[in-house]
Amino acid sequence: MRMRKKPNLIPRMERCEACLIRDAETHRGRWRELKPDAAQLRLELGCGKGRFTAETAQQHPDVLFVAVERVPDAMVIAMERVMKLGLTNVFFVDGDAARLSDYFGSGEVDLIYINFCDPWPTNRHAKRRLTHVNFLKSYRAVLHEGGQIHFKTDNSGLFEWSLTQFPPAGFALSEVTRNLHEHGVRGIMTDYEEKFHNLGTPINRCVGTMGELPPEEETAKAPREET
Amino acid sequence: MRMRKKPNLIPRMERCEACLIRDAETHRGRWRELKPDAAQLRLELGCGKGRFTAETAQQHPDVLFVAVERVPDAMVIAMERVMKLGLTNVFFVDGDAARLSDYFGSGEVDLIYINFCDPWPTNRHAKRRLTHVNFLKSYRAVLHEGGQIHFKTDNSGLFEWSLTQFPPAGFALSEVTRNLHEHGVRGIMTDYEEKFHNLGTPINRCVGTMGELPPEEETAKAPREET
Repeated sequence: MRMRKKPNLIPRMERCEACLIRDAETHRGRWRELKPDAAQLRLELGCGKGRFTAETAQQHPDVLFVAVERVPDAMVIAMERVMKLGLTNVFFVDGDAARLSDYFGSGEVDLIYINFCDPWPTNRHAKRRLTHVNFLKSYRAVLHEGGQIHFKTDNSGLFEWSLTQFPPAGFALSEVTRNLHEHGVRGIMTDYEEKFHNLGTPINRCVGTMGELPPEEETAKAPREET
Repeated sequence: MRMRKKPNLIPRMERCEACLIRDAETHRGRWRELKPDAAQLRLELGCGKGRFTAETAQQHPDVLFVAVERVPDAMVIAMERVMKLGLTNVFFVDGDAARLSDYFGSGEVDLIYINFCDPWPTNRHAKRRLTHVNFLKSYRAVLHEGGQIHFKTDNSGLFEWSLTQFPPAGFALSEVTRNLHEHGVRGIMTDYEEKFHNLGTPINRCVGTMGELPPEEETAKAPREET
């Protein structure tokens, strides 16, 4: 379903000023000033309407969350949700995942969530997938050594393809499952996830942990893009 | 991807007059007059941009095809495709699958294709799925005994759920596969199907053949909707 244009987007955004970061670049390397006692800084790329963000932040009050979302109509719903819950550990950036290193300093981020990103099924659009090896490598600029990416998708084609992208980007795979909720719901769901799970669609999940980038020879052996 | 509003939709539609049926109701029970030598009449519900329709019609010049599509911006592309190929055995209806029995007479249709319909993942929208038992029962009004439904989807949740809907609607299942193209491409693909297949997403397919409607007791035992 596509998002309909939300009426009063601007005034609604303004009412959520407290959790909106308009100038993410100026916070680069200084995000923890927003919550000096934060044990961790976690990102969500594409938070949509923010159910996952809000519930995860609620469960981890000691963690600072930054949600990046390109669709303001969705983000405003996420912001309102966070405001309503009175959460002070979540901030929103109306920005682009491709610009993470403009927003965050080296090693500033502990964990990146990628939930149900656009599968961009056409081969010539493969580079737009948030789990493309180039994107994964770009996250290295903001994650610290041992930092993680938590990835969920209902699209099995995207999932299997993504599993080939993590290792050449220097991420070790773990917790790989093709049916996350097989024995009951595990972890916090997104709205999208809950709908498809209820319909019986299996949810795929994996964790990538940042280690050394493999030597060039190995990178060259990574699966090549069909274009 | 959502369809952008196509410029010049009306004049483009008008240039495809030859294959556009504006008054489907007046053809009810008389569709074969459009192609008196037609061996069969087949429908496609939701033809989108019409690649499947056009290629299938090209492969079966002895069959009369009627493609129903609710999105004019997509349908105009399908019509232009059919005109360009010079096909005279395909007609388009800018209409709604829920109104099939207004458009077609009893037993007039031999086969219905349902390709990659909207999964409507939310339980309360289940009745909108084109493979809901109520929809399947409604197709009985236009299919003849032994008529078939050919259903394809990439969504495994929708597929498994749909398999529970066919029998209580009086359709016998056959050719059930969870990976249609496992050993190479089979049949004609839609554009959507090709993209997701290339990404590695398995395609599900089944055929339902119309037989007797099961007695009421059995129908009552059909899986109930969660609402």
